[in-house]
Amino acid sequence: MLIQHLPMLSTKRIVLASASPRRAYILKSVGLQAEVISSTFDENLDKTMFVNPGDYAAETATHKAIEVSRRAIQAEDGSRADLIIGADTVVELDGKILEKPSDEEEAFRMLSTLRGRQHKVFTGVSLVFPFAAEPKIGQLPLVHSFWEETKVEFASFDDAVIRAYVATGEPMDKAGAYGIQGIGGTLVKSITGCFFNVMGFPIHRFSVELDNLVRLGALSH
Amino acid sequence: MLIQHLPMLSTKRIVLASASPRRAYILKSVGLQAEVISSTFDENLDKTMFVNPGDYAAETATHKAIEVSRRAIQAEDGSRADLIIGADTVVELDGKILEKPSDEEEAFRMLSTLRGRQHKVFTGVSLVFPFAAEPKIGQLPLVHSFWEETKVEFASFDDAVIRAYVATGEPMDKAGAYGIQGIGGTLVKSITGCFFNVMGFPIHRFSVELDNLVRLGALSH
Repeated sequence: MLIQHLPMLSTKRIVLASASPRRAYILKSVGLQAEVISSTFDENLDKTMFVNPGDYAAETATHKAIEVSRRAIQAEDGSRADLIIGADTVVELDGKILEKPSDEEEAFRMLSTLRGRQHKVFTGVSLVFPFAAEPKIGQLPLVHSFWEETKVEFASFDDAVIRAYVATGEPMDKAGAYGIQGIGGTLVKSITGCFFNVMGFPIHRFSVELDNLVRLGALSH
Repeated sequence: MLIQHLPMLSTKRIVLASASPRRAYILKSVGLQAEVISSTFDENLDKTMFVNPGDYAAETATHKAIEVSRRAIQAEDGSRADLIIGADTVVELDGKILEKPSDEEEAFRMLSTLRGRQHKVFTGVSLVFPFAAEPKIGQLPLVHSFWEETKVEFASFDDAVIRAYVATGEPMDKAGAYGIQGIGGTLVKSITGCFFNVMGFPIHRFSVELDNLVRLGALSH
């Protein structure tokens, strides 16, 4: 598990290719110090190309991480990035992918369709090791991506609750127009799966995958 | 829901009868300002008296809140406490209740029995309204308690992981010897139910129950 690698990881330069303060918070809460470099990737992949929302999120995460790794592979002080972490979170309801709402009206509409029912949250994660070779082709970099799904059941509530919630501003920068770790947490009846996946980063799965990759030598350069 | 009552609640004096920084954090994250007054209640109720761990936790929560309300009903500046919130969290596995470990050895033992399986977390909450009358008997105070259950599935891991985790010190002040919001989150594969209930305070259920009580007039004195 991740916990046994923390001393080694503290000597590595880890870059989080995401502007989400929630992802940085989750990494920090388990003892991982990551430098944040936001990706400029447009997040405009053709959704119809993907069998499920998890694959779409993982592919977006890979594009984010690869874009950042091209810029961030070497820091100003000459230190090299050892691991770049990309992530992307989407909400799925009735076969439709919900991302961040573009305005308050769209946030209201998203929350109206989510209330009183269950939806799914997918977070895709991509780990890029710029100095480790991809085993299949023997070339740099090693890219490993995966995704995790969590079911979220919303309570029933009336329009006044949605209006009060939208007025807090919390929904605006979040997939599906809610934040489970804030006031939005009062609207969520139950989840099945990883909570941190809903918040934006599946820390248990990441811990298992990173453990495997470290054992395979992805960081021993 | 709670969100509609936040402006009114911000004018009330709310006391959290718990020393847990996690409970204060959850209340704050949804916009509730609570004053913390730790309870001196011994938490030594006879567990065999209760049909299930939820009832035990709710009763302990009530004792905490009542004990604090006796001391805190009037602040030094003369303001009255409008609501005192008690809470207690326990873990149940194989019909046995796990509370906080008394030392590192007990923490190790608890984590050994939890790994690779599912257990249940119960948080009992008690709301004491010192100036509202209990409807059934017409006398002060109104006391309303409830509990919530969440299933937690731990990953499988070896003794070295447990030793590394115990060495962080995180398990020591937590029921079941882990904190889901910290490094312990990497050990949790999945949950079913309310995440905040595992962290120590079921914020959705609290939101629903407080909404009902406010509508019934518990805070309109």
